[in-house]
Amino acid sequence: MEILKQRILKDGKGIGTSILKVDSFLNHQIDIDLMEKLGQEFYEHFKGKKVTKILTIEASGIAIAAFVAKAFNVPLVFAKKVVSKNLEGEILTSSVQSYTKGLIYLINVSKKFITEGDNVLLIDDFLANGSALLGLADIVKQGGAHLVGAGIAIEKSFQPGRQRANDMGIDVYSLACIESIDDNNIKFKEY
Amino acid sequence: MEILKQRILKDGKGIGTSILKVDSFLNHQIDIDLMEKLGQEFYEHFKGKKVTKILTIEASGIAIAAFVAKAFNVPLVFAKKVVSKNLEGEILTSSVQSYTKGLIYLINVSKKFITEGDNVLLIDDFLANGSALLGLADIVKQGGAHLVGAGIAIEKSFQPGRQRANDMGIDVYSLACIESIDDNNIKFKEY
Repeated sequence: MEILKQRILKDGKGIGTSILKVDSFLNHQIDIDLMEKLGQEFYEHFKGKKVTKILTIEASGIAIAAFVAKAFNVPLVFAKKVVSKNLEGEILTSSVQSYTKGLIYLINVSKKFITEGDNVLLIDDFLANGSALLGLADIVKQGGAHLVGAGIAIEKSFQPGRQRANDMGIDVYSLACIESIDDNNIKFKEY
Repeated sequence: MEILKQRILKDGKGIGTSILKVDSFLNHQIDIDLMEKLGQEFYEHFKGKKVTKILTIEASGIAIAAFVAKAFNVPLVFAKKVVSKNLEGEILTSSVQSYTKGLIYLINVSKKFITEGDNVLLIDDFLANGSALLGLADIVKQGGAHLVGAGIAIEKSFQPGRQRANDMGIDVYSLACIESIDDNNIKFKEY
């Protein structure tokens, strides 16, 4: 998606060979107009799939996913990383390893919200090692729902997430695929 | 806001005298159409205030705040609860006590995104003890920005958050104020 790639080149910041900071428009400060365009783009790609739910993971996927849900006119569900007092009853749970934060955490979704008959589209801001995406896919499977595919804003194609998702048979649609980062020399890959 | 109150009565679940579960439409599964209406309502209330930024806190404030930001056509910033490798540079930080989760955590905002000249509107899904709201207000102050006010979806008026915010001079606008919860006997308060 050209508009996202141009924005990454303009406002993104590569650090070393693996970190891409996009905190000025995507995952800390958020450009809402851009989020709407991303939402529309995912809708165009997946609109034939009878999507009934959008599933993402807190926190930085939520703003994008909200506009995908708006485009599809379906509810958004976000997986929670902490079980709070407000999340009880039967829970679908899976574990996710965060390389950025250097920890393993559980993600949780109330069983009420992902059920048989649901066609679930996963949305996230980044695909890197694929751990979050596979955790979400696991939750969809546990809930007995159908996984439509995954919409990703930025894919780090030099990390194994895309391959791992493809090996699981997940239809991944990424709007900007990063082939390499060398400080501010950011190269895109075309599939 | 009548539509929100009716939805609370229809789909909310009171537990004991202090917990209100609204996870089917507000803070786990999210009704996007409702979020848009909340966003529009906050816009109508604060539109004369020259708002330049919407500030919320991850995670459950983000979906509402995204539609407030859309209505104002300004960026959304969300405070992060964990300092990750991707959040470096100068950081505004404050501490927040979560009664729901039984812990104290730090909230963090990059100094780049809340600055002098900003007119900041705080948005959150709940106001209970007010700790999150006061933490966000503290961050606005640290950044040298002007605090316009706070838009809250659901206020638990029987808890001290509203009073604490008023004591700080914060203009709080809550769309549904809960006077009392007694299991599923939920009473609203009018200011």
